[in-house]
Amino acid sequence: MKKIINDPERFVDEMVEGIVLAHPHLVKHPGQDPRVLVRADAPVAGKVGIVTGGGSGHLPLFKGYVGQGLCSGVAIGNVFSSPSVQQCLEAAQAVDGGKGVLFLYGNYGGDVFNFDLAAEMAELEDIEVRTVLGRDDVASQPKERKADRRGVAGIFFAYKTAGAAAERGDDLAGVAEVAERTVERTATMGVGLSPTILPTTGAPSFELPDGQMEIGIGIHGEPGIHRGELRSADEIADSILDAVTADLDLAEGDRVAVLVNGLGATPLEELYVLYRRVHTRLSDLGVSVERRYVGEYATSLEMAGASISLLKLDDELLELLDAPARSPFFQEA
Amino acid sequence: MKKIINDPERFVDEMVEGIVLAHPHLVKHPGQDPRVLVRADAPVAGKVGIVTGGGSGHLPLFKGYVGQGLCSGVAIGNVFSSPSVQQCLEAAQAVDGGKGVLFLYGNYGGDVFNFDLAAEMAELEDIEVRTVLGRDDVASQPKERKADRRGVAGIFFAYKTAGAAAERGDDLAGVAEVAERTVERTATMGVGLSPTILPTTGAPSFELPDGQMEIGIGIHGEPGIHRGELRSADEIADSILDAVTADLDLAEGDRVAVLVNGLGATPLEELYVLYRRVHTRLSDLGVSVERRYVGEYATSLEMAGASISLLKLDDELLELLDAPARSPFFQEA
Repeated sequence: MKKIINDPERFVDEMVEGIVLAHPHLVKHPGQDPRVLVRADAPVAGKVGIVTGGGSGHLPLFKGYVGQGLCSGVAIGNVFSSPSVQQCLEAAQAVDGGKGVLFLYGNYGGDVFNFDLAAEMAELEDIEVRTVLGRDDVASQPKERKADRRGVAGIFFAYKTAGAAAERGDDLAGVAEVAERTVERTATMGVGLSPTILPTTGAPSFELPDGQMEIGIGIHGEPGIHRGELRSADEIADSILDAVTADLDLAEGDRVAVLVNGLGATPLEELYVLYRRVHTRLSDLGVSVERRYVGEYATSLEMAGASISLLKLDDELLELLDAPARSPFFQEA
Repeated sequence: MKKIINDPERFVDEMVEGIVLAHPHLVKHPGQDPRVLVRADAPVAGKVGIVTGGGSGHLPLFKGYVGQGLCSGVAIGNVFSSPSVQQCLEAAQAVDGGKGVLFLYGNYGGDVFNFDLAAEMAELEDIEVRTVLGRDDVASQPKERKADRRGVAGIFFAYKTAGAAAERGDDLAGVAEVAERTVERTATMGVGLSPTILPTTGAPSFELPDGQMEIGIGIHGEPGIHRGELRSADEIADSILDAVTADLDLAEGDRVAVLVNGLGATPLEELYVLYRRVHTRLSDLGVSVERRYVGEYATSLEMAGASISLLKLDDELLELLDAPARSPFFQEA
């Protein structure tokens, strides 16, 4: 156990307290529930609200993306556990500015169940709700079952584009369309080099011996597509790129945004070693890297590893990526 | 070994290649040496240049803070090793806009030796050079030997304030005074929970058994002031705060900026648990937290642990902290 924590049962609440103490000008609790956060100026009248949420342990996901030009609110679960129906509903109520609310979160059973119930309850209060699920993890299902894929780091792209669309005043159908288009054009695959240690038990979430890696691993340690001896950074980048470029049917002349994401314990230096290969390989394919993000965008506590996400751009998505945004963990001026 | 690398001997060069491929609009090599980086618009005529540098393995230190409103250039050593005299000199030459150059880096013997020689050589070319050393690590020397302290994460504050002073057009004496004042008013202490693994050897840099912690540890694993059983986040925060608040003679009515910095493998969640206690304790003391930074600002590869830095503010330093800045790893709009 190498964790800087107090009572493990209070881990999530204390972390949220820290975020609110640190960033009171950016986020606030709309009510008494410490597991619901919204942007400090919510609700924004006349603009679509965007609510995300899911289990804790993935910072900056999910609560780090609440702010101007990104999500409007978040429902916060325990580590790797879904938020409650009531929390999802409270977030929707608190961000509704009269133009409806988009639920935008990763495709996990518990989250879907609770957000769907909250959507029904919100509709009873005349809050119009649409749902778009992040489902970018190529390793979780084959292409023909794309709708069943899990959501991982690539949801960052959808936060950014849908958030910008909401900010410029698009209606709910428009914001949902942007989010859906972004998800459809995003593919991610990860590699894990060590397990996550759960704060409550102090035990690893799965076994992965030193010197081994698992390609395609999920952000909760869900099984990947290949386990074996740790390979070189370039070989790892190539394996992942082969999968995601095929999935997106990338061809010469296409433009992409790249996200090289650290899962927690992997140094930023190693992410840049990966980025180097990704950039070079894409250039060799004639694919132009228009924007790139390198760092920790969606983690799994202290798991060592990384993921690579590509978003196949069109003109509008690129413009939305560049729109201003400001949250505790992401800024685009 | 849990590293995503290729040839360990090429680790630093490949990482730098990745940074330049990712951020060509922000940084560039001024010449042929891949270990020298400067901001993309260097030299900026009529402005003081700021050069930093040191060993690799600390990203975002040092190369992550090259950009507008921060450092102008960086000389890049191997992992935990000093850059060469020639690299320090080339960085100075490349950023000199006719108003002189400030060398601003951490107080380590090899770095001081090489930067001092480079300063002499630069003076021969009529480039005026001043030097300010980061020396914020309270654990490394007692208060009466403050000048001999090591530099750690708190140098971020000096980059920010001195960089803003240079950007607004202060002369070399003025920029150096701002940097020196910031360093004088900054105190840091860290805690390590696991060793760093060196890429070239695959071996830990020091031994620290699971379940133990070392308070006051340096960012290369230099010995701290207390080793013992891992304590709670609040107890760790209290130990560090007791030391840094005493060092800065903080009293009711003082204003500070806080940096809660992750050393590499510690999840952002845990940094916010620490921040929660820091904020509460400072508020109880009647000290006002004017600005706060929580995340990885100066790491030690994959070391688990964190550091807490305080900067005792005055009106000008606060204004300089808020000035615009943009580098690959830090943005203030």
